[in-house]
Amino acid sequence: MATVCCGRSGQTSTIEGVSTTATGTLTDHRAEFQSAYDELKARGLKLDLTRGKPAADQLALSDALLALPGDGEYTDAAGTDLRNYGGPNGLPELRAIFSELLQVPVPQLLALGNSSLTLMHDVLTFAMLHGVPGSERPWGREETVSFLCPVPGYDRHFAITEALGVRLIPVPLNEDGPDIAAVKAAIAVDATIKGIWCVPVYSNPTGDVYSEEVARELVSLDAADDFRIMWDNAYAVHHLTDWRPEPIDILSLAAEAGNPDRVFVFASTSKVTYAGAGVGFLGSSPDNIAWFSHWAAFQSIGPDKLNQLRHVRLLKSAEGVAAHMEKHRALIGPKFAAVQEVFERRLAPFGVGSWGDPKGGYFVTLTVSPGVAKRAIALAAAAGVAITPAGSTHPYLDDPDDAVIRIAPTFPTMEDLTAGLEAFCTALLLAESEHASER
Amino acid sequence: MATVCCGRSGQTSTIEGVSTTATGTLTDHRAEFQSAYDELKARGLKLDLTRGKPAADQLALSDALLALPGDGEYTDAAGTDLRNYGGPNGLPELRAIFSELLQVPVPQLLALGNSSLTLMHDVLTFAMLHGVPGSERPWGREETVSFLCPVPGYDRHFAITEALGVRLIPVPLNEDGPDIAAVKAAIAVDATIKGIWCVPVYSNPTGDVYSEEVARELVSLDAADDFRIMWDNAYAVHHLTDWRPEPIDILSLAAEAGNPDRVFVFASTSKVTYAGAGVGFLGSSPDNIAWFSHWAAFQSIGPDKLNQLRHVRLLKSAEGVAAHMEKHRALIGPKFAAVQEVFERRLAPFGVGSWGDPKGGYFVTLTVSPGVAKRAIALAAAAGVAITPAGSTHPYLDDPDDAVIRIAPTFPTMEDLTAGLEAFCTALLLAESEHASER
Repeated sequence: MATVCCGRSGQTSTIEGVSTTATGTLTDHRAEFQSAYDELKARGLKLDLTRGKPAADQLALSDALLALPGDGEYTDAAGTDLRNYGGPNGLPELRAIFSELLQVPVPQLLALGNSSLTLMHDVLTFAMLHGVPGSERPWGREETVSFLCPVPGYDRHFAITEALGVRLIPVPLNEDGPDIAAVKAAIAVDATIKGIWCVPVYSNPTGDVYSEEVARELVSLDAADDFRIMWDNAYAVHHLTDWRPEPIDILSLAAEAGNPDRVFVFASTSKVTYAGAGVGFLGSSPDNIAWFSHWAAFQSIGPDKLNQLRHVRLLKSAEGVAAHMEKHRALIGPKFAAVQEVFERRLAPFGVGSWGDPKGGYFVTLTVSPGVAKRAIALAAAAGVAITPAGSTHPYLDDPDDAVIRIAPTFPTMEDLTAGLEAFCTALLLAESEHASER
Repeated sequence: MATVCCGRSGQTSTIEGVSTTATGTLTDHRAEFQSAYDELKARGLKLDLTRGKPAADQLALSDALLALPGDGEYTDAAGTDLRNYGGPNGLPELRAIFSELLQVPVPQLLALGNSSLTLMHDVLTFAMLHGVPGSERPWGREETVSFLCPVPGYDRHFAITEALGVRLIPVPLNEDGPDIAAVKAAIAVDATIKGIWCVPVYSNPTGDVYSEEVARELVSLDAADDFRIMWDNAYAVHHLTDWRPEPIDILSLAAEAGNPDRVFVFASTSKVTYAGAGVGFLGSSPDNIAWFSHWAAFQSIGPDKLNQLRHVRLLKSAEGVAAHMEKHRALIGPKFAAVQEVFERRLAPFGVGSWGDPKGGYFVTLTVSPGVAKRAIALAAAAGVAITPAGSTHPYLDDPDDAVIRIAPTFPTMEDLTAGLEAFCTALLLAESEHASER
């Protein structure tokens, strides 16, 4: 995690109207923090900073979808009637747009239903029931199947594998991707490891971006023939600055490494257009796509191609997507800036916490003193401010250090976000001072 | 199957322009049939009567969907923003409409993605991986899992179970539903049987309608605790006449029989609105719905609720659905009548075939002499007319009698349908006369 701040002291700070100079230790301020917290609690707030959902003004950017494709518009460029059954691979025009953005050749990129989560679940379910190309048997027939989970990571990823009975093994996430030494060490001693969860761009929740070097290491790992990288490129186009990550053509890297079937690429328009009514994408090697399509044919006579047509008409091109994402940035950039401003003003003077300043994505990760995260979140909850539960960034919802907190700034209004952050800082400062007193 | 015709002879018939009186045996006419077929083949037709798809004019009945829900329309009656994540049960207003039509209480009826096939696949996949309420272990951990398959039946049903490694056991389908004596006999000697596929109304492909008596027998079967009835009510509102089947409240019958969790009800708007962009429904007991929702939560953050809103705006009410279905009937009724007319005129005089006259649904089943179906379909294919492959109405695509042929009249234009049926009769008469000559 790109940590931007921590441990400075001696600055002037304002605690919910209480002016103070943070010259002493946290313990010295405990009474002051307690009274600020009591005052906060008495205000009976009801604010929610839990989930990475787009706000209403972001959704409104795509409201042309509400009347698209429009009267008489129901065919694709080839003249196919999109209202009927068929077209299991999805609309070619939409796949072309995202092929460019995701660096997956159109024939290897499927446009399917309204959720990439469903596609991840499908891939893993098919793997459990039937095995993937290279499997000796269905994963479900193995004694144990294990997955590497870079931490901090995404709770819904970990939950899919956990629900399928897969054993979850945490490995550290560095600023440039999963800790390759830890990954190699785990695989070297554990033949049950069949895969790893990855969010390569603006990782959930740290905002870290994988380097090409780490990507090369991942596709080159000396792992099982049916080892799979779940490459969830959820935030590929979700930039918050002018900087652009170096694009990683992961499928080509895997092929070059002699492991062409190692990677499944996932993406969606959930945070481009509508979170509930977007389009999910699955990209992979020709063999993996043939494998997926074979099993998917039993469950579907084709995706909702009209919704895909709506997306083509709205987004038009890869450039259209980029332009659309700039509008998101204009709306949520200030919210991410508010997180920095509040934490810097409220926490830095007391040396409390360290946090990232992500260049994209949907989250900010705040690391607090070990053993303090749950307490801080519980205090915030008791004051009416919901924060993503501590532990949700780790397998089995268990952060062994009880230190990582995921901040999701996009969904609340700016007013609610700021009020929520201020309140949360009040709760955190109290929790940290309690903790310091106990030492 | 309600058979309406067969075995009459001595009538005047026209074989593609050749006038004849069918006074002799089929063998007597063989040369005539051969020359009619040769002439047909020379015409180089290219017609497809294979799949049960709505035609373009049927799809056009729902073209208001193309511009729905419309500018500024994205909330449900409760004010929820349907553009965002959430709402895993689907839009309450849409569930209310179909609750009435399907006789499933709203809280027990989920409105989900664009395909009920996906929901059947999900249910069975979850059963394989986790077991259903009442299972001792996941079905996938059983030595063998078997399913009863009423025949003739629907190929995609049988395919889902086959793909999951389930053993398929055919049982006869009578005019009032699965042959209960055969069902009981199978279950009595085979503890591996975990379920049965059912299309209770206008069954695919015979058009038969289950009686309440048979439904009561099915929910009362002395079967495994985790025995499940896959009640695919795909054609509940797809009437072709003024007659209406007696509604069967299958969930209540199951509860009364002391087996409340025995039934999963499936339906969709695929043949109400758009085949590729409709809404699928799953109904069941409270325990089954809780079970499904628990596992589905790992794969989805909610269905496409905007598409559900489109459907509410288009269909408005249960009465609205019924009125909409009358428009379908007006379009496809003449096509079903054409099947009767052509078969009656072309086949009856030679005593060839017996066929149903369904009061609803999407198919007509034609039964020919044992051993003739494949040959007739091959002859038709060689003359450029595609008919659903023989055997597709049976598990493992194997009709042991090689006698059942599924006719799907809806998709072609009336002109193509009539031409295709005439051509197919020409092929069938030749096949039957070849067969008669061999005896």
